[in-house]
Parts: sequence; C-alpha cells; structure tokens
Amino acid sequence: MQKIKLTIAYDGTDFHGFQAQTRRDATIRTVQSVLEESLERVTGHPVPVTGAGRTDAGVHAKAQVVTFESAGAVPVERWPRVLNHRLPRDVVVISARSVPPSFHPRYDAVAKVYRYTIDTAPVPDIFTRRFCTHFTEALDVERMQQAARYLIGKHDFTSFSAARAQVSNRIRTLRKVDVWTDGTYVHFLYEGNGFLQHMVRILTGTLVEVGITERQPDDIPHILKAKDRREAGRTMPPEGLTLWKVKYS
Amino acid sequence: MQKIKLTIAYDGTDFHGFQAQTRRDATIRTVQSVLEESLERVTGHPVPVTGAGRTDAGVHAKAQVVTFESAGAVPVERWPRVLNHRLPRDVVVISARSVPPSFHPRYDAVAKVYRYTIDTAPVPDIFTRRFCTHFTEALDVERMQQAARYLIGKHDFTSFSAARAQVSNRIRTLRKVDVWTDGTYVHFLYEGNGFLQHMVRILTGTLVEVGITERQPDDIPHILKAKDRREAGRTMPPEGLTLWKVKYS
Repeated sequence: MQKIKLTIAYDGTDFHGFQAQTRRDATIRTVQSVLEESLERVTGHPVPVTGAGRTDAGVHAKAQVVTFESAGAVPVERWPRVLNHRLPRDVVVISARSVPPSFHPRYDAVAKVYRYTIDTAPVPDIFTRRFCTHFTEALDVERMQQAARYLIGKHDFTSFSAARAQVSNRIRTLRKVDVWTDGTYVHFLYEGNGFLQHMVRILTGTLVEVGITERQPDDIPHILKAKDRREAGRTMPPEGLTLWKVKYS
Repeated sequence: MQKIKLTIAYDGTDFHGFQAQTRRDATIRTVQSVLEESLERVTGHPVPVTGAGRTDAGVHAKAQVVTFESAGAVPVERWPRVLNHRLPRDVVVISARSVPPSFHPRYDAVAKVYRYTIDTAPVPDIFTRRFCTHFTEALDVERMQQAARYLIGKHDFTSFSAARAQVSNRIRTLRKVDVWTDGTYVHFLYEGNGFLQHMVRILTGTLVEVGITERQPDDIPHILKAKDRREAGRTMPPEGLTLWKVKYS
C-alpha cells in the first residue's frame, strides 16, 4: 500500500461541509463522501479519506489536503486526471504525491491559513458572489487592522469559538492576522497553528463590529480575557470563508 | 404606466437560458421566468419582461438589459433593492432607470459586447470555473489575433451561425474582435451590431482551431465566403460565454 496526499480545491456552496455524515437514511453531500465515491469507482473498493481540516457547510477550500491508501494500480501523478474526470465540477484535485505511511494530514500540519472575504459593493458581483459575504455597511479598515494586532500571538480563544465546541484546550497561536482592501473587497487572512470551531467566522465578525465602530480596537484584549463566547462579535456567514492553505514542515 | 429599464447580471450555469419556455407542464428555470416571478410577487399581477438578447442555456451576463411596465408603486431607484431581496443568488439587478415608453431593449441596442474566456491551466480554478471553458491544448494567441482581423467589418456570417437558425438576413458588422491572455486565461471579446445564434461560440471555436494550428489565419476569408456552417470550426461550450454589455445611442 502507498499513502497518497492530494491537494484539492472546492466550492463549498452546495456541500454540507467537508466531513462525511450519516443522517438516518439520507445521503448528505459532503466533500469527503464525493471524493470517497470517486475513489471507490476507480478502485472498485471503499477508500476512506482523511482531511487536514473539517470545513463547515458552505465553506470553500483553495488548497485542502487529504490522504488515502492506494494499492498502487494508478501511478501517483495520474491521480489528479483520473479523479477530475469523475468528480463533480465543484471539487477539483490540484496535485497528488506519495507520502510516508506515517504522514497524517491533520496532525502533521504546522499551520493553516484561512481567508475571509467581504464584498462591500452596493450590489454583489455575480462572478465572485459564491465566495464572498455581501456586507454594505461602511468598514473602517484601519480600525480593524488595529484590533487585529491584539489577536496575534498565543491566546486562549474560548471567546472566539462556538460555545458548544467539545474541546478541552482552547489555546491557539495566531501568527498572522491581515486585513486589507482590494477594490470593493475587504480580505481577512489568518494564519495559525490550529483553529477552533467557527473561530475564523467569529474573529471576522468581531473585527467587523470594530470596523463599523460598534466596538473599539482595544476591546479585543478584554474579550480574550473573558473566555466567554458572549463577549465576542457575531459569527459571520460561511460563504466568505476559504481554507487557503495547509502548511507542513 | 412607466417603462423601467433594468441592468441585470446572472450566472447562467443553472438556467435554461434567458427566455421563458413552456415545455408541457414542466416549469423550466430561465432568467426571464425567475425575474417575472419576482416582479409578480412584488406587484401582485403578471409583469412581462423583454430582454435585449436571448442568451443560451449556460451563458452568463455581466450586463443584460431588460424592460417592463410598472404601475409606479415602487419608485424607480428602489427596484434593485426590492428585486434583489426576492431573486435567487444567481441573478442580480445592478441598476434601474425610467425610459420613454417607445424604448425597446433589443431594437434600440446599437451594439452588443460578448466575452468568451478559456482557462488553459492544467487544472481548472475552482473560483472561476463556472465562467470559463477549460481547454488545455496550447493556443497560439498571435495566430488567433491574425485570424480575428479578418472577422472585423461587415460580413455575411452564415458560416458562423447555427445551421438551423431561422433568420433571413445573416449580414452583421463586427466592430471589434480582441484576443488576449491574462495569466492562464485567454479572453475573446466581440463587439458587433448583432449576433446570430451560436455565432460567438462558433467564432471562438474557429479561432481556437487556428490557435491549435488546425487551421490557418487566412482560412477565415474562405470560411466567410462559403456561407456554409460546415466550413467553420466547432461550437464552443456555453460556460465560457458572457454577454458583457449592451450599448444604446
């Protein structure tokens, strides 16, 4: 057996997230299930897939990483072509390579990068609409950049994670939080060693509340300290969020 | 009554073209029918819509123009907001203005601009895939630009229109045919006083055959002269085509 690492991209709009789910008898369309179906059609047997991150329903990926075990019938470099022929148009395999059997896409990742994009144009652009959140209130980018600086570093991000998330350690390190504009778009880029459930969407929602002057940039340290979800801002909708990159050492 | 001119954009992927259709009892999802449904929900009565051009199934619009008669209950400037609240996410109203009762979006148009885009990257880009045709054979852009020059001007475009098209006069004037690259994208832009059925897709397919050196640039005059659909190249798929602009004097 050979372990194959795929880099894949997907338009999350029509997926119930990355991870395969069973809900009674219904088939839920997830990225993992669609990939596993294509792999089964190629190989003739079930092929479980492991992903680097479980993106939520509606969240996209520019470069998600997944692995699976291959019996070797398909040469490594042929996998993108073989799978892209079978996959629906909203998932694409960008590249494939062979990795050691011990490689794990989630545990071996040293950093993940997420991007959140808001379109502030009066009317959303039809060509980018699936990948942006439309938000027309005036955003003060400099204020958001000031607030973003307080988020960089090692912190307990309890206030910025879904209250129901089942995880004991909520300490994460953010290496980078960038906010910039490009025409009518406002982009937020986060690089960290790990992210809690809804963390990027709550971080962005809190920065947005700073941007519309509902909050002050220096509210951020207090929100972090409170370790209480209710202290942070709104959870932004999923459509503006993209898993941008997964980094390995 | 007041005549309202809307500029609209749509992602044609999930539409059976612009024009409303009745196929037995089935409801066919078209841009016109979706617009008319929204207008009826707003006004409480049927509101027929007239478009500047009948885009085919899968073809997009960045700025299509449509008109309808309004009793005036909604102020002109409110129409974009009122309709965008009700329209599905793949159609958007960009602007609205009042026009004289005699204005006709098709007959009064002095020119239309279409853009066709090919993505030549080895793997299609998930963010632009809905609006591009993926084509990985090497394209010689300079050859296509040479061929394009022969298309400019007033010609009988019979060879470049769907053989079944029911139209007596196939003489059209192309003012501009531009071909250029932008990264892995190859764009084709056509401006003319009118276009026959499938014309842009056949023009592009013929230029592509020049680009892959299946044909010579100076084959174009012979194809025009033949007035025979079989002399021209392939009909490119609809997903790369966008109605870019409709011009009025």
